[in-house]
Amino acid sequence: MTDETIQPPRPLEGLRVIDLTRALAGPYATLLLAGLGAEVIKVEDPRGGDLARENSPYVGRDGVVVERQHDDDVSISHLTRARGKYGVSLNLKSPEAAGIFADLVRDADIVVENFSAGVADRLGVGYAAARAVNPRIVYCSLSGFGADAPEGGKAMDVIIQALSGAMYTSGEPGHPPVRFGVPIADMLAPVFSVIGILAAIEQRHRTGVGQHVDVSMLGALTSFVAIENWSAMAAAGMESRTGLTVQRLSPFGVFACADGYVALVAVHEKLAQGLFRAMGQPELGQNPRFSGRDVRVANANDLEARINAWSQTLPTAEVVRLLEAEGVPVAPVRHPEDALVDPRVMARGETMSVAHPTYSSTVDLRTSGVPIKFSGARIGFDEALAIRVGEHNQDVYGRLMGYAPEEIAALTARGAI
Amino acid sequence: MTDETIQPPRPLEGLRVIDLTRALAGPYATLLLAGLGAEVIKVEDPRGGDLARENSPYVGRDGVVVERQHDDDVSISHLTRARGKYGVSLNLKSPEAAGIFADLVRDADIVVENFSAGVADRLGVGYAAARAVNPRIVYCSLSGFGADAPEGGKAMDVIIQALSGAMYTSGEPGHPPVRFGVPIADMLAPVFSVIGILAAIEQRHRTGVGQHVDVSMLGALTSFVAIENWSAMAAAGMESRTGLTVQRLSPFGVFACADGYVALVAVHEKLAQGLFRAMGQPELGQNPRFSGRDVRVANANDLEARINAWSQTLPTAEVVRLLEAEGVPVAPVRHPEDALVDPRVMARGETMSVAHPTYSSTVDLRTSGVPIKFSGARIGFDEALAIRVGEHNQDVYGRLMGYAPEEIAALTARGAI
Repeated sequence: MTDETIQPPRPLEGLRVIDLTRALAGPYATLLLAGLGAEVIKVEDPRGGDLARENSPYVGRDGVVVERQHDDDVSISHLTRARGKYGVSLNLKSPEAAGIFADLVRDADIVVENFSAGVADRLGVGYAAARAVNPRIVYCSLSGFGADAPEGGKAMDVIIQALSGAMYTSGEPGHPPVRFGVPIADMLAPVFSVIGILAAIEQRHRTGVGQHVDVSMLGALTSFVAIENWSAMAAAGMESRTGLTVQRLSPFGVFACADGYVALVAVHEKLAQGLFRAMGQPELGQNPRFSGRDVRVANANDLEARINAWSQTLPTAEVVRLLEAEGVPVAPVRHPEDALVDPRVMARGETMSVAHPTYSSTVDLRTSGVPIKFSGARIGFDEALAIRVGEHNQDVYGRLMGYAPEEIAALTARGAI
Repeated sequence: MTDETIQPPRPLEGLRVIDLTRALAGPYATLLLAGLGAEVIKVEDPRGGDLARENSPYVGRDGVVVERQHDDDVSISHLTRARGKYGVSLNLKSPEAAGIFADLVRDADIVVENFSAGVADRLGVGYAAARAVNPRIVYCSLSGFGADAPEGGKAMDVIIQALSGAMYTSGEPGHPPVRFGVPIADMLAPVFSVIGILAAIEQRHRTGVGQHVDVSMLGALTSFVAIENWSAMAAAGMESRTGLTVQRLSPFGVFACADGYVALVAVHEKLAQGLFRAMGQPELGQNPRFSGRDVRVANANDLEARINAWSQTLPTAEVVRLLEAEGVPVAPVRHPEDALVDPRVMARGETMSVAHPTYSSTVDLRTSGVPIKFSGARIGFDEALAIRVGEHNQDVYGRLMGYAPEEIAALTARGAI
């Protein structure tokens, strides 16, 4: 027996990522790669680092606070997004930057950046520069409208949500658009970036060379919106924006309880009969207005009113219990705080806790995991987390790249790193 | 010169996928794999096939219709989701199914299924059965709560949305929850499934063996919701559900115009001053209530009211023009029909048209593409599309697997395929 714990490998072990990303979209891509086992080296400007370091709230010796109180308070966004990443500093505008970038890329497999379109090339850290030193490099650009877009503007999540059509898919017909509370545009593009990167790595096994992978936030979100048949539904005279319920599948959607809401689905005959029994009104199953899918759809307003009249009188838990007993798919509408601590989700690592490296917090700072389980591999983040900008300069520039200590000191003194 | 067009390869060429999926979540995963160049063989029950074949609306000789009129009317859902997939029939409950499944899996790289947890094993087409004939197989299960869940219930998108907390991230504080109009739970799990499959394929290059990849719809969506610091925001007394605007970043969010809405972001000083100039009220930049980020946040209600009072008097296009002229990030809130035909998105293949193989339609049936561009590869779907269940039986069972014509005829006659 030994003290060593034999852990399964992670799927992407052996791949090295040079991470030039900032804010949310890019860092979420490299976070997924880190959790899958790639070695991620996050490059930050020595003059302040990733802007997400300034995101409120913070955690530190006084617990969770809205405004930074102490030097060692850390933004919870940073604690979340920098997990498992080695942090080096590099001023991309310094005269030494091109050479240091080339050294970083020479032995890497992947570069990820999310500057505005064209900026990486102008800084000398674009795909052309990376390929020149390493033709095997897979270089991923993540931008608002694509690497080929003329726009130089910043693409924020809410701007992309507005352009994508997503805001007019939720809410009641005729009501204002709805902003998704999850930054869906910032999150989807990186997920597609990871698919693109891994597909290019697979192609590299055949060809021996890398390539440029280019993902647009607008394109990623619009492609999601496009899965519904919007133009066909409009052409067929079907209502596409339908609020809390979908009447063409009635009963389907969200209904009010005395203390909250439930989602339920009873489209098919057997389920509808089960719903009517749970409501204590089994006779509705013989009522010509509700017996059969087509008439339920035709009388959806009446049916929904009857369901709400019943469910509004009962606690959510009771409505769930009664419907589950009849085999009708049902769930309480939960708040994020409750959803994140679902034991199933915690056990599978789909949500995970983060913590300040020094100070404990009474609040469980629960955040995203990597929602994939492998039978022959594990998901997990290295201990690495650059609290300080350039925290792993010695390790990366010294141990990994062979820079001499005096060279690192000189680069630091000149502000290059 | 020849008539041949030299096309770049697709990244996943050479990988074969056996696709046991139905409905939306699973088929979207294999759609992405097909677009990336994998050879996808979709397996359907000869007694009717994928339920999505019955999804309204349909397209055919009478154009787009709500109810099926003719035998050759095709569900637009099917036209969308079956693109580029070869279709074979196989009755998984027939005595011949285990042997035929083994023949399919023997030379495949990937299997994807989205039965309820446990069902694939019970049918004899689970990971254990696949691995027994092909240890290199990467087998992906996509289910509501994970392959290890005791629940046997069906996990519909709206049920998972309710459980994930997503419904309480949108909308105004104190208002009912908001159902996302995009089936986000059905769409996210497959995207993570593709990441898991490609990561397992990468690991296979090192180890020579495949593994089981297990993705939960609840876990995938909850991990997205968890990127926001819900527990920390609650602990710090910050409002987390904030409707159309985010007052802690004011001005940020969606504002009303005379004929629609715009999204705008003017968090930083320079942008705020640009907004005030666009409003024709540059003096607000010197007003102690609005000069400086902290006071704008403190007076967010007043600021938002002033912005709306201005924007409501103008057409959306004019508000966009005025703000763009000042360099303020702004966009019109578009409807899906308009978003899907954005020339940038069409040019990049992020949305694509589908069509009935025989009948043309006056409606542009625009749907999801694969939102990734590669410099050394292309995205694209094979012409294959199984309008009939088992349409490619001869091609797959005959040409690919070497079954004799009389064997295929006998299997068909017995209802096995």
